[in-house]
Amino acid sequence: MDNVIIEYLSQYIELTTKEKDFITHQNVIRFFPKGTVLLAEGERADECYFILKGCVYSYYLVNGNLKVTEFYTEKQPITPISYTNKKTSEYYLECLEDSIVALGNEERNAALLSGLPRLAAIGGTVMEDQLSKQRLKYDEIIKLSPEERYRNFQENNPELLNRIPQYLLASYLGIRPESLSRIRRRLVK
Amino acid sequence: MDNVIIEYLSQYIELTTKEKDFITHQNVIRFFPKGTVLLAEGERADECYFILKGCVYSYYLVNGNLKVTEFYTEKQPITPISYTNKKTSEYYLECLEDSIVALGNEERNAALLSGLPRLAAIGGTVMEDQLSKQRLKYDEIIKLSPEERYRNFQENNPELLNRIPQYLLASYLGIRPESLSRIRRRLVK
Repeated sequence: MDNVIIEYLSQYIELTTKEKDFITHQNVIRFFPKGTVLLAEGERADECYFILKGCVYSYYLVNGNLKVTEFYTEKQPITPISYTNKKTSEYYLECLEDSIVALGNEERNAALLSGLPRLAAIGGTVMEDQLSKQRLKYDEIIKLSPEERYRNFQENNPELLNRIPQYLLASYLGIRPESLSRIRRRLVK
Repeated sequence: MDNVIIEYLSQYIELTTKEKDFITHQNVIRFFPKGTVLLAEGERADECYFILKGCVYSYYLVNGNLKVTEFYTEKQPITPISYTNKKTSEYYLECLEDSIVALGNEERNAALLSGLPRLAAIGGTVMEDQLSKQRLKYDEIIKLSPEERYRNFQENNPELLNRIPQYLLASYLGIRPESLSRIRRRLVK
């Protein structure tokens, strides 16, 4: 399982065997069954997550309607806004599948960085990378039609597509499930 | 003018007089008249910006239609995606007003950080802050109606509202200018 973390970090830095061992021993890993709410609206997040296996999604409940904002899967970090700004969360994080997750908190992250100073050095790059992705995601919603966004999603996450129920994907794309069915039928032709 | 930069940094760190002096002497400051295109689609950005005075907006041209993604104004940094990912830009950055801007590039930013190591230490916080804001902006577009987004914009940027032409604000909100007029009339009542 720790391989997933090491694979993720290897995008940014080549780790020595000693560093890999250190990471392996630092991790707090938990299993959460499908349907577990990791964070609810109104709660304060004191942990951040890194998905080793499974899928977690984030959503708002607006007048009883689900508004899905993201699907997180293997090799993805989740830092709740509430973890950063220390306010209560306005959205939910829920396991869409049985998930195995590495947990971070301030104390544990500080210990990891002080034991592995080279990791601190790539922190900026990792964050820059996340910021770029987040901005592209915003820009996509501004400039693309739901059908184009579906096609992008299909292209970038072909394997994930079969793991997500249609109504959640429709919510993520900001369209009704019927519209998503129509788009899918059109693209199959 | 350098006060604007110092004010911005003072959100994160208390600067000594010596540090303030150092910043003042490092800056490359330029004036760009209204309408200047700082970055065009297809160009590679080798500079990032910090607005001292004025307003810059970013937009995509999609089949000849303007899709505005952001308005940047005093005390805001602009790091083009193209600056980070080294690819050509897919969007434009243009001065909406006569603007005075501090320019950064890799060499100059490295010199600034090596002369002011305390600044490097807050880099993570600044970036975390930007990442949170960017995520909230995305979430807002998912969960709020155009009218609610307009009200948020009005609340958070009352002064900016009068500086932005209605058709650009409508584009930013993803609605037609007529719809924005209706929203405005409704809110005045």
